[in-house]
Amino acid sequence: MPAILYLIPTPIAENALHTLPAYVTEIVRNLDVFIVERAKTARHFVKSTGPAKPIQEMIFAEIGEHSALADAKQVFMDAITAGKNIGLMSEAGCPGVADPGAAIVALAHRAGVRVEPLVGPSSLLLALMASGMNGQRFVFHGYLSPKRPELAKDLRRIEAQAKQLDQTQLFIETPYRVQMVVEVALEVLQPDSQFSMAQDITGASEQILSMPVKDWKNLKNFQPEKLPAVFLVGKPVNK
Amino acid sequence: MPAILYLIPTPIAENALHTLPAYVTEIVRNLDVFIVERAKTARHFVKSTGPAKPIQEMIFAEIGEHSALADAKQVFMDAITAGKNIGLMSEAGCPGVADPGAAIVALAHRAGVRVEPLVGPSSLLLALMASGMNGQRFVFHGYLSPKRPELAKDLRRIEAQAKQLDQTQLFIETPYRVQMVVEVALEVLQPDSQFSMAQDITGASEQILSMPVKDWKNLKNFQPEKLPAVFLVGKPVNK
Repeated sequence: MPAILYLIPTPIAENALHTLPAYVTEIVRNLDVFIVERAKTARHFVKSTGPAKPIQEMIFAEIGEHSALADAKQVFMDAITAGKNIGLMSEAGCPGVADPGAAIVALAHRAGVRVEPLVGPSSLLLALMASGMNGQRFVFHGYLSPKRPELAKDLRRIEAQAKQLDQTQLFIETPYRVQMVVEVALEVLQPDSQFSMAQDITGASEQILSMPVKDWKNLKNFQPEKLPAVFLVGKPVNK
Repeated sequence: MPAILYLIPTPIAENALHTLPAYVTEIVRNLDVFIVERAKTARHFVKSTGPAKPIQEMIFAEIGEHSALADAKQVFMDAITAGKNIGLMSEAGCPGVADPGAAIVALAHRAGVRVEPLVGPSSLLLALMASGMNGQRFVFHGYLSPKRPELAKDLRRIEAQAKQLDQTQLFIETPYRVQMVVEVALEVLQPDSQFSMAQDITGASEQILSMPVKDWKNLKNFQPEKLPAVFLVGKPVNK
């Protein structure tokens, strides 16, 4: 059998192994070559699936640092040549989406290796589903500008795009800038624009808010958690 | 306990119930009010999970037709008032993404009802993961224009956007237009642009192709299946 590159989702919240279909953990259990964003968390995850082999006999090649990509590619080619299946894993969620895994998938296509994406959690997709905004047209921007004046400009720009194209606008932010994003958004977005924030989806402190900007302003003493967040900006939702 | 709106993914390929995590089928088994794209397929799916109640005693409100949305909203409000949890389901894949379910999610937010998105297959997300293209910035357009000259224009426009913004461009097509999309794309896209097509992901006839346009032209007698497809256009992939 020719080798396969499995794209393996991992949980996006603590203690959320239940969000993975059983066929995914079954595949993970029988692999011994992994290309991963960070070896430490990947080993921890593989261990939790009850693997067939001892962890010490497995290979975990990292692609988190830019410098390591060439090494990971070599690990990939060696495994393929030996007829071994490979697992690609992100730090959390789906590999190839908002992470550096795409380079390995592209290499697999060039090498004629079958690429098999497996089903699992994606914070972007879950946040989009849960927002109640247009899921028929949407765009993901990654991170917006980190500083207030540029962020304000970015938010006004994507708000205009949301209205003009009826296209939901998604972006993500790191824990320590979530509060600032909420503040700036409530300052600069129009009162009837829809604004959504999702944190810790599938986790114990899951919070999903979606309402017009004017209703956000009425939330008393609202404080987002210091956790990563997915934000969405959309045109006013029809009643 | 206040009622919850569960966003329930369903399989995207035949006989692919294994792609749903067990916690999803467990939740489905214990619901008896569903808002669905098409009642017939929804009943079939709910039956396959081994529900606690007879199917005839459940409510399936359709939102597939525009005219039925008001009825579905009434079913939603009645269930909430009675303290009952509700399941929202798409015809296949994730509700609220490329389907009309978002209106019900928006209603839930307005009514202060907790929205709980569950993990499952999305052909868009799986196609993006498997493409090897940039997953850090991407846009989903829904369907492009159905006629050749306008489709050619659309493809040129999204190709320019892919290069200018380094933003992967996704769109979908129905079975009977897939062949035409491939023909027009190979005519009008630049030789080094990356072009990907995914069909029947997670299914028995899964096919995922991703390569530069010039390599597509070398495929001899290539015929896509008469199945829905996800297409992606991206800038040239670095080696």
